[in-house]
Amino acid sequence: MFEPRNPNFAQKVNESFALQSAMSTLGMTLDHVGAGEVHIRLAKHDGIVQQMGFVHGGVLTTGLDSACGYAALSLAPASSEVMTVEFKTSFFAPAGHDQIIFIGKVLKPGRRAIFTEGEALGIDGDHRVLLAKMSATMTYIDLP
Amino acid sequence: MFEPRNPNFAQKVNESFALQSAMSTLGMTLDHVGAGEVHIRLAKHDGIVQQMGFVHGGVLTTGLDSACGYAALSLAPASSEVMTVEFKTSFFAPAGHDQIIFIGKVLKPGRRAIFTEGEALGIDGDHRVLLAKMSATMTYIDLP
Amino acid sequence: MFEPRNPNFAQKVNESFALQSAMSTLGMTLDHVGAGEVHIRLAKHDGIVQQMGFVHGGVLTTGLDSACGYAALSLAPASSEVMTVEFKTSFFAPAGHDQIIFIGKVLKPGRRAIFTEGEALGIDGDHRVLLAKMSATMTYIDLP
Amino acid sequence: MFEPRNPNFAQKVNESFALQSAMSTLGMTLDHVGAGEVHIRLAKHDGIVQQMGFVHGGVLTTGLDSACGYAALSLAPASSEVMTVEFKTSFFAPAGHDQIIFIGKVLKPGRRAIFTEGEALGIDGDHRVLLAKMSATMTYIDLP
Repeated sequence: MFEPRNPNFAQKVNESFALQSAMSTLGMTLDHVGAGEVHIRLAKHDGIVQQMGFVHGGVLTTGLDSACGYAALSLAPASSEVMTVEFKTSFFAPAGHDQIIFIGKVLKPGRRAIFTEGEALGIDGDHRVLLAKMSATMTYIDLP
Repeated sequence: MFEPRNPNFAQKVNESFALQSAMSTLGMTLDHVGAGEVHIRLAKHDGIVQQMGFVHGGVLTTGLDSACGYAALSLAPASSEVMTVEFKTSFFAPAGHDQIIFIGKVLKPGRRAIFTEGEALGIDGDHRVLLAKMSATMTYIDLP
Repeated sequence: MFEPRNPNFAQKVNESFALQSAMSTLGMTLDHVGAGEVHIRLAKHDGIVQQMGFVHGGVLTTGLDSACGYAALSLAPASSEVMTVEFKTSFFAPAGHDQIIFIGKVLKPGRRAIFTEGEALGIDGDHRVLLAKMSATMTYIDLP
Repeated sequence: MFEPRNPNFAQKVNESFALQSAMSTLGMTLDHVGAGEVHIRLAKHDGIVQQMGFVHGGVLTTGLDSACGYAALSLAPASSEVMTVEFKTSFFAPAGHDQIIFIGKVLKPGRRAIFTEGEALGIDGDHRVLLAKMSATMTYIDLP
């Protein structure tokens, strides 16, 4: 769908993901890296819940932010880094699932603003339940 | 500013916060509980950063979400629980500070929607730097 | 996709739309009313532009808000009215098209919050260009 | 609070506002132009309401968008134009007032993203009622 400007984008995303200590702390792993689309997987554990035992909405948002940010990074020039400008998350259902997948996609890669969207899906056997949806604006900054 | 409907709101917020395991995992503690305003403090540690070593935007959002949610809970009837409907976070500056404070406030406590706002402030000596700002909609659900 | 609770939902949407004077002032007409999906059409005119001659982003948002709101109303009980809680609009491209269509859809019809999404599409011959996208939360209120 | 880069910023805002035909169509006039803060006034009329007779939320958003955009423009270089990247509006109360004022302010003027906020206030005698609040991201583009 999108043409990557950096042929080594997958390696770049993998290396950057490995530096995000928040990912391993929260139990998130990189699941798929495509040009303009990145998936992250969360294995629920006891340290990431809110008061009712569901995965904290901020934790869901952290997975969505990384999925959307890496979707944007996959289309960036080799010398660029991604920063989140802003995002909105809407919460549709409580996250009680053991496995959650975050799917981040680029909608429109502009020069100043890269518009992305993300979905948090709870895996329930063969079904996937939409738990939360993000709309996020990313921007590129040049690395020194 | 607001009149709490539950005289034991501070105890309720403290008990609920203790159940949010995501808070301790991320290094967050409850700092202040007022009627319609709650502060949470974050001590930065190695397990919550993104690829450039700053606190992950999703982690900031987690603190903001809890601060805003507990600000809403402080004004709830005793029998109610709070759920986040949606939030937006805007990111103004990289979060490289060792101490960050999240201030959540109720703007407008409606029947269906409780409108809140939150600020993430990096503590830099005597100064506080605005790192991120949240606009969040909360709702009450009745406990069984 | 969704089962309407009011068999006369299309009539209800049409009657409500006719009361929204902002629609006719801005040049908008109702184009399609389905259960959970409503389309509104805008014919560009000289009175709705911003400083560069494109349709004002707030005008696009007005069409998106009505499309999303009526998508929610199409699934409401007969005795209910819809109110917008909040929305976010992202702007992808300047709106220089003579004809614009707003497509509002219900994503998740909850009890307290009806989550909707809308797209503003510029009609360019056989193509449709995504100009703006809305994520909106609606709620129902009982009519007296 | 902010230092304008264009000494003629007020003239620039006035000239741009005069080109926004949507403003006069909706009944909006420029009320105050400061460095980083702009006020717009709306006189309610029959052509801008929704189905219950209140000012349409999209119309409120149009006033907020222009107020925030011109607040950003007041701090722009002389050769720059402002574009809205995205905004979120939360609706606190129905807009039944005859006079409404929109106050747009720059929160953080970044290089890529200018973060702004706006309030829509209904004028009720000596009181002002907060009707809606916007969080908006603006960006500058160079004029040819």
